[in-house]
Amino acid sequence: MNGTVTMRSVSIIGIGSTRFGKLTGRTIKDLAVEAAVKAIADARVPREKIGCLFFGNFLSGVFTGQEVLAPLLANELGLRSAECAKVEGACASSAIGVRLAYLMIGAGYHDMALVAGAEKMTEASADTATTAISAATDSTTEGICGMTFPSFWALVMQRHMYEYGTTREQVGMVSVKNRANGVFNDIAQFRKPVSLEEVISARPISDPVLKFDCCPVTDGAAALVLCATELAREFSDCPIEIIGSANALGPVRACDFTDLTTFPGTVEAAGKAYSMAGIGPADIDVVELHDCFTMAEIVDSEDLGFFPKGKGGEALEQGLSSMGGRIPINPSGGLLSKGHPTGATGCAQIFEIVRQLRGVHPNQVKNARTGLTHNAGGTGTVTTVHIMRRLD
Amino acid sequence: MNGTVTMRSVSIIGIGSTRFGKLTGRTIKDLAVEAAVKAIADARVPREKIGCLFFGNFLSGVFTGQEVLAPLLANELGLRSAECAKVEGACASSAIGVRLAYLMIGAGYHDMALVAGAEKMTEASADTATTAISAATDSTTEGICGMTFPSFWALVMQRHMYEYGTTREQVGMVSVKNRANGVFNDIAQFRKPVSLEEVISARPISDPVLKFDCCPVTDGAAALVLCATELAREFSDCPIEIIGSANALGPVRACDFTDLTTFPGTVEAAGKAYSMAGIGPADIDVVELHDCFTMAEIVDSEDLGFFPKGKGGEALEQGLSSMGGRIPINPSGGLLSKGHPTGATGCAQIFEIVRQLRGVHPNQVKNARTGLTHNAGGTGTVTTVHIMRRLD
Repeated sequence: MNGTVTMRSVSIIGIGSTRFGKLTGRTIKDLAVEAAVKAIADARVPREKIGCLFFGNFLSGVFTGQEVLAPLLANELGLRSAECAKVEGACASSAIGVRLAYLMIGAGYHDMALVAGAEKMTEASADTATTAISAATDSTTEGICGMTFPSFWALVMQRHMYEYGTTREQVGMVSVKNRANGVFNDIAQFRKPVSLEEVISARPISDPVLKFDCCPVTDGAAALVLCATELAREFSDCPIEIIGSANALGPVRACDFTDLTTFPGTVEAAGKAYSMAGIGPADIDVVELHDCFTMAEIVDSEDLGFFPKGKGGEALEQGLSSMGGRIPINPSGGLLSKGHPTGATGCAQIFEIVRQLRGVHPNQVKNARTGLTHNAGGTGTVTTVHIMRRLD
Repeated sequence: MNGTVTMRSVSIIGIGSTRFGKLTGRTIKDLAVEAAVKAIADARVPREKIGCLFFGNFLSGVFTGQEVLAPLLANELGLRSAECAKVEGACASSAIGVRLAYLMIGAGYHDMALVAGAEKMTEASADTATTAISAATDSTTEGICGMTFPSFWALVMQRHMYEYGTTREQVGMVSVKNRANGVFNDIAQFRKPVSLEEVISARPISDPVLKFDCCPVTDGAAALVLCATELAREFSDCPIEIIGSANALGPVRACDFTDLTTFPGTVEAAGKAYSMAGIGPADIDVVELHDCFTMAEIVDSEDLGFFPKGKGGEALEQGLSSMGGRIPINPSGGLLSKGHPTGATGCAQIFEIVRQLRGVHPNQVKNARTGLTHNAGGTGTVTTVHIMRRLD
């Protein structure tokens, strides 16, 4: 970013989401429309005020044969004057959409924007889905050698255990904690807790990654209405201001990491977002981060500055990221429990943080006023961090 | 757009393209890197100055199994500080990328941006490609009923002939003209002229659409470097200023058109772009428009205001859009002759217009100072118009 530009403040005034899970018989368009209609109703804005639409999606062409999702949704909603685009950055797709909408409103190009994210994945088998998702690796170098995301995270997990003495049990506790949180989330895919014993004795996927270390394949959509803060009070009793936003690049191949236990895109995006917000990790009350695999939550919680590098497993064991702990992480259940409809996740994480900051979350963090989301695509090759605060 | 915002002027200072055609043995990444490296070299800018990258692509997930194209390219180029996203709007994908880059620089967020577009299609058969491209229809309503793009354009052609008396021969002349132009284009897929007799006696694809009425399946990539005009002279002897830019919505289903002979997205985008530029169709010296099918060129040439509605066929017959005519259309050969690597076409059209306005095109329009590009996605459901002029 050019350091000299002055932006208008931007807030979130409407949120909507479908239930996450295996939503048989519903198309990706249906899901996106449901989430968008809920978000617009929540924002209480006339549709003609929405000047642009960004649609986050990763693999709809492959999974459903449907593209042009942005104008498709705009047509369904009757947003005749909105300019629109689908944006893709693997699992970070819709957070990139949020960032673009934020920049458009911040520049004054539009006063209001709709951002939607959706994915329809469960018609594919888990094997087919894993292959499809490998489109987020460098397919002609590592992809062709069998690098899928379970195998990538197996490398990271092995290395973190080797470098820092992180234990198999500590890694498994991510799943136990997030499944326990998901019990309370009315829209989560899994609402049944798991025990540590179940987690560490589950069948192997890519050693040492076991079944409960992996997020599921999910259908779902989420949507947000963003508005210039100076206009937000006309529509919303509780606008949530975006005070930090960043999108950073990381390596796309495992072989390009100088250290497999830290993700440069997360470190850079977090640093930029904290700097914009003028706060640090200690000022954050609640976090939704990208726990696509259990190991990811530990690494990310370190890279985002909540715990020192190598201490994420220990912090987890001490309950620091549990409900009531110093910094509750993934009270929604995270990707592991709530589910991970890849293109929807960026919006879905912000949906959860907005519910927290409004004080209406079914798994509420007490007195949460400032929240952070972290959404990573591929091997963290594109990573987005947003920081939000309650305005009042 | 909010009418009150003041933008910085933005210019194009670098262009690059691969050859278009069946590029066996080359991956989509290879093609994008080639085009981007050429554009950056042409711009003579240090890579660290590039603040953002938008990558236009439609169907890489389906055709090649490769996504995250934007960070993949950024990593290959070493653009470590660039924020990036892939944007998709079917065949208008990379023109949407140009528009986003233009808005980002215009707002002062970045001084310089790279926009790339690429598609790798020829590993699929023409049938498979036609099915894949139907992802740009509403797949669950018309797509499922067999609405492919050849059949959509067959409907438009029938209706235009019925309403305005446009003849089969006039429609075929689009192909004859554009193939004649493509002979001169060093990077075109087809460099062999066709006669009107060949065109109108070719095998039917979807009656009355015949073989030479359809653009080919193509591999290719193109890239552009955009820069704030106030800085452009540092790098370029001949910056080309973007003086009009618009992205508008149109129907996604044939059944939603009130009149199949006019495209609301084209009319709206053109109106906005002319208004921004403060000029009209009579002030344009050279045009690259979206001739995915012969009929499209006639309809678009009317919707862009070059000829009255219904008179496009007659104008063509009179040679008004030929080289040396009143308004030369598609001197590059257009999509019909140069080829149509869907996600690349938006950037590729601008590449051609920049060559024209620099005065170095292999099929040069004399004294061209102002040019227009028109790039349409799907059934014109997302349509982008850019107007450019030579600065000096």
